[in-house]
Amino acid sequence: MSIIHDKIRTYDFLTEDDRKYLISWTDPSRSPSQAVFAQWIREITRHGAELPEADRHGLAQLGWEIAVKMSDSGHKQKWMSEATRDSLLEMEQILGVEHDSSSALILNRFRTDDDNFQRDPSSQLDVKVLHDYLEGDGKVLRDQLRSLLSDPSFATEYRATKKEYRDWALDKCGELAQQGYGLLALPDYVGGQDNMTDYASVFELLAHYDGSLTIKFGVQFGLFALSILNLGTREQHEKYLNRAGTLALKGCFAMTETGHGSNVRGLETTATYDKSRDCFIVHTPRPQAGKEYIGNALHGEAAVVFAQLIVDGTSHGVHALYVDLVDSQGNDLPGIKREDCGYKMGLNGVDNGRLYFDHVSVARDQLLSRFGQVDNSGVYHSEIQSANKRFFIMLGTLVGGRICVASAGLAMAKNALHIATAYAHKRRQFGPADDEPETLLIDYPSHQMRLIPKIAEAYGIDFALKGLSERYMDDEEKSKKIESLAAGLKARATWFATSTIQECREACGGAGYIWENGITQLKADSDIFTTFEGDNTVLIQLVAKGLLSDFSKEFHDDGFRAVFRRLMKQASTSITEKNVVNVRKTDASHILDPVFHREALRFREKHLLHTVALRMRRYIKQRLSSTDAFLRCQNHMINLAHAYVDRVILKAYHKALETCPLEIQPTLRHCAEIYALDMISRHKDYYLEHGYMEGSKTKAIRRILRQRVQSLKGSSLSLVEAWGIPNSCLQSELV
Amino acid sequence: MSIIHDKIRTYDFLTEDDRKYLISWTDPSRSPSQAVFAQWIREITRHGAELPEADRHGLAQLGWEIAVKMSDSGHKQKWMSEATRDSLLEMEQILGVEHDSSSALILNRFRTDDDNFQRDPSSQLDVKVLHDYLEGDGKVLRDQLRSLLSDPSFATEYRATKKEYRDWALDKCGELAQQGYGLLALPDYVGGQDNMTDYASVFELLAHYDGSLTIKFGVQFGLFALSILNLGTREQHEKYLNRAGTLALKGCFAMTETGHGSNVRGLETTATYDKSRDCFIVHTPRPQAGKEYIGNALHGEAAVVFAQLIVDGTSHGVHALYVDLVDSQGNDLPGIKREDCGYKMGLNGVDNGRLYFDHVSVARDQLLSRFGQVDNSGVYHSEIQSANKRFFIMLGTLVGGRICVASAGLAMAKNALHIATAYAHKRRQFGPADDEPETLLIDYPSHQMRLIPKIAEAYGIDFALKGLSERYMDDEEKSKKIESLAAGLKARATWFATSTIQECREACGGAGYIWENGITQLKADSDIFTTFEGDNTVLIQLVAKGLLSDFSKEFHDDGFRAVFRRLMKQASTSITEKNVVNVRKTDASHILDPVFHREALRFREKHLLHTVALRMRRYIKQRLSSTDAFLRCQNHMINLAHAYVDRVILKAYHKALETCPLEIQPTLRHCAEIYALDMISRHKDYYLEHGYMEGSKTKAIRRILRQRVQSLKGSSLSLVEAWGIPNSCLQSELV
Repeated sequence: MSIIHDKIRTYDFLTEDDRKYLISWTDPSRSPSQAVFAQWIREITRHGAELPEADRHGLAQLGWEIAVKMSDSGHKQKWMSEATRDSLLEMEQILGVEHDSSSALILNRFRTDDDNFQRDPSSQLDVKVLHDYLEGDGKVLRDQLRSLLSDPSFATEYRATKKEYRDWALDKCGELAQQGYGLLALPDYVGGQDNMTDYASVFELLAHYDGSLTIKFGVQFGLFALSILNLGTREQHEKYLNRAGTLALKGCFAMTETGHGSNVRGLETTATYDKSRDCFIVHTPRPQAGKEYIGNALHGEAAVVFAQLIVDGTSHGVHALYVDLVDSQGNDLPGIKREDCGYKMGLNGVDNGRLYFDHVSVARDQLLSRFGQVDNSGVYHSEIQSANKRFFIMLGTLVGGRICVASAGLAMAKNALHIATAYAHKRRQFGPADDEPETLLIDYPSHQMRLIPKIAEAYGIDFALKGLSERYMDDEEKSKKIESLAAGLKARATWFATSTIQECREACGGAGYIWENGITQLKADSDIFTTFEGDNTVLIQLVAKGLLSDFSKEFHDDGFRAVFRRLMKQASTSITEKNVVNVRKTDASHILDPVFHREALRFREKHLLHTVALRMRRYIKQRLSSTDAFLRCQNHMINLAHAYVDRVILKAYHKALETCPLEIQPTLRHCAEIYALDMISRHKDYYLEHGYMEGSKTKAIRRILRQRVQSLKGSSLSLVEAWGIPNSCLQSELV
Repeated sequence: MSIIHDKIRTYDFLTEDDRKYLISWTDPSRSPSQAVFAQWIREITRHGAELPEADRHGLAQLGWEIAVKMSDSGHKQKWMSEATRDSLLEMEQILGVEHDSSSALILNRFRTDDDNFQRDPSSQLDVKVLHDYLEGDGKVLRDQLRSLLSDPSFATEYRATKKEYRDWALDKCGELAQQGYGLLALPDYVGGQDNMTDYASVFELLAHYDGSLTIKFGVQFGLFALSILNLGTREQHEKYLNRAGTLALKGCFAMTETGHGSNVRGLETTATYDKSRDCFIVHTPRPQAGKEYIGNALHGEAAVVFAQLIVDGTSHGVHALYVDLVDSQGNDLPGIKREDCGYKMGLNGVDNGRLYFDHVSVARDQLLSRFGQVDNSGVYHSEIQSANKRFFIMLGTLVGGRICVASAGLAMAKNALHIATAYAHKRRQFGPADDEPETLLIDYPSHQMRLIPKIAEAYGIDFALKGLSERYMDDEEKSKKIESLAAGLKARATWFATSTIQECREACGGAGYIWENGITQLKADSDIFTTFEGDNTVLIQLVAKGLLSDFSKEFHDDGFRAVFRRLMKQASTSITEKNVVNVRKTDASHILDPVFHREALRFREKHLLHTVALRMRRYIKQRLSSTDAFLRCQNHMINLAHAYVDRVILKAYHKALETCPLEIQPTLRHCAEIYALDMISRHKDYYLEHGYMEGSKTKAIRRILRQRVQSLKGSSLSLVEAWGIPNSCLQSELV
């Protein structure tokens, strides 16, 4: 590198500015931004097209020819000179990419880390094909970010105090912004890429690396910027979004209050329109109404504050306002009070805090006004008449956040599974006799049962989340159905993360408890995922309510008789499934039949739905209030929602099997079988209780599940390696 | 306090030494030791008995009269003087315990914190009676320690760096030692109290307070001192134990190695007898043989090192040696290398490290020689002929440790349950309508199901652990049966702790994630409990092996026919239980019948035992090696061990119901019902699969369990308060 710097300094065809630029680009943390790259690609495409197609040149030669073509006459002279061309060729040589290798580079494109994927000769699985399939279209961006995170400047260490951890997270957030990652999801008219999918990929990949940085990134570029995008007008976008996406403006998302977390409708902060001063007065009426656990609360210069909007004595429900927290000197504005939430179980690199507002004036045009605004005569308008509907649209930002948190949870669970599986393939303990080698952990059936079904489930959740993301991106309406699916998968993925990381910690024994082995931080950081962006227990009930309301809509639309006929028909289907032969079938071909899996999971879901609907109907007839009826069915509804999510994941698995490359199909089918039998096993009490299976069948399922798990042992390491988590992200001495 | 100090300084009947003593005693962290208190009690009992029984005096007057009686003539003069007596009366007044109140104090004895136990008027339960019953004989010591831990000098704060946390833990360990807590379990001939029960109580109570201090205390006064006690000779006790018990000598317990944790028999460190120099050479043959995760490794001045003892080329298996780590100046001795294990998920106040020995010489008399010694002609002797038996005796120290870790895990789970239950009784979220108060968390059925069965289970584990402790203390032989029970309950209690603390964290929502609310530290600190002092997965298999070997012993002793007859008899009992009426019984009186509970839990255990025994027999007949046969049955064996522990806990519950005060019986019976039905519910797939119950019955059990849980809601707060965890230990803003 120092040779290159020396050369740059001596080439006399470069100006002082050129030199500064070129040297700055060689610093990996300040490499050219996405925008600069994009410009190069445009120029290269345009001028490169004019070169003779038959010529096969190296990079330097090509660059030189393009430069000559695109330069205006003033610069052409400089570029035409042989000295310049020779300097470029010399540089090519220094970099070790002279003609042959550089043309190979161009013709074969970049190979990145793909060589990692040939490690396991014992497995029949082509790990690279599986990896590429999992990566999908995002591979280039993902490889780019993986390589940034593997840079020495991103090396991690234990940061004991919140001060140093928070400073680090803010700093790294800045570096990511400089690379253009903060603008990905924002519209092009503020300099963004309009690419939510890429944004979600970055969030997921960061989760493999550091939880605090992930959340810090998500608070700034997701919650803060995207709530302005979703709830603000075009003028508001142009005013704030570029600065938010480049971290020139640090912001927070102030929704949760001490007294109201899950029940957002009950928020107590008020934004009262003051006609005389033509502004809103944002106010915290009591300490319990303070904004709580707000990420970026201490670094933040502005906040999107959710408050009850009161105009002329009438409350219009929860609305969001853009509120400045600091003046131009960076000092807190009058009426703003912040408190540090202090240390937490994890995520100590995120500056969570409390915000209190004491009659803070906010200009009228800072109400984020896409769905509701106050005009200059002080009258409230909204295109959406129903306050209820308006409320759910305001909360829409959370849906994207839930998908992101779900993938982040899954990503962390994958880290833990990678570490524990790799460890199980090399750690030995106890053996048949003193003079024989001890047994590998992965050879113990109990250890296989701890890890392998979880690997299979991770794949299933991954497919379901990818399917959900695609539907979410395509769906302009952000329908109730997708909201409900996001709620269900968020709850499932994050509970899965909690239990998986716990299991992996224990599966690594004492080593799992040591920070340098990479699991402890995952546990501490991911634990809150089951709570934030919607508490899982609340979300899972939201799913059940969605299913029930679809069901009652059917009642409403088609009348009771029609639904009753359908119920009868489905019941008779169940009777077919429940016939004497079926409930006792124990042969492997039946037990492994995907149709059996699908039907078994569907039976549990439908049966729970029908029984809970009938119970609700009975209670309502008994004149119980709907709240009381709901409370009586609460546990029943929670079971229903889980059954629904189980089935959704299996469906996504089966869809993946239809679309994946043939080489990887057998292994993925094997995983899908394990997932399905695991789900059926976990709920076999239900199947037995309702006569869907007999004991002989559930015993056969247990036996066959164990066999399938055992026979996936050989591929288990490849399956975790296919996720392509770089060592710089695993940060574990055990791998 | 400063008035008292002034007075002490002015009383001219005190010598300078008297003054220093008295003033030092007023410092709560340096209050008189147990030994001094014990002496006072002896003197007061002896001389107090001579006072006229009819007189009713205050404390000062009584003290003065006793002092006069017990003084020799030289001091009597001083005590006789009116001035002395008046000074005492004056002091009594300053302290606010003049005549009436001080005699009230004496006559009613101390009330300590008992007033805390009247808070819940809604509950019929007499919380104080329950608390006293749970405390048992240890109440005085426990109250004393509770009050010490509530002292401002024991106030806790977040300690971010391991350095400051470790310094604090060492310091507090010193204060506990100064109070005599380190000597409790040691024999009287080294200044101890010979009271293992009290030692275990201290360990358990400390766990309510701070995990790091608990483990630091346990490593020093438990593992280190007690291994010298159990494995050393009387001379060795006299040489080391008083200093170990007073922390004058800091030590560690160096058993685990990087390469061998669970498989202690495979340790690789060697202690080779060198005849020419009449000493042992302790050596780490490769880095993986280094001692790993050793608590006190950095502060320690000595270690009990477990190594393969080699004498004259013959290995005698694992033995323990007392090895000095430092010279008299406190510098590491030659050949000693230490490494810091760095940060961990929790317990960062414990200095875990690695120890490596490079040909370290250890004097012959430092082999802990109770069960094996090398005589001065260099010949190895042991009273125990079987190397196998000797090995298990060497590991005996671990059994007491396992009981302690189990209670510590349970104690931490109780903290979490107290916090989450208290929070559920005041936190509201969502409500029937906007203008009505929101619903308390504890009123949600799902929330009741999260917390209340766990409270019931905590009581059951507590009773089982107390029963085990009593048997352990009484049992000089430390039989296999107790070892197996300790293994099972250690695994159960610590897994219970992990899952309960997790559930409580989530049940407190975001608040549970904040350090100042007291749950995060419990989670981080207790997580390793499932791994250390025996990995739970290994321990639970030990239990199963114990059950199986008892079973095969029966085969061996009584012959196959006899056992077969018994099997048949038991099978016919099951058939009675499994008769058509029984398997369908759904009336509450049957479902709540303790005989049904006992039989159901017994059925699962016996049935699993028989089936695994038959499988093993079949595999052995098929000429599988015993290792392979075992591997095939591994998951089956694990289930057997869990079934056994479930039943042991129920048995302890039922025993407690027979012995507890009548006032608390109804509530405890209610808890026992919940525990039993919860266990049956969790395994209803098993009962259904084996035809022990039909679906109608398991449904009835689910319904009745939910009703019983709901009706315990009113007492749930009292049940957690009865544990008597002081606020200084809960350290939570949520209570």
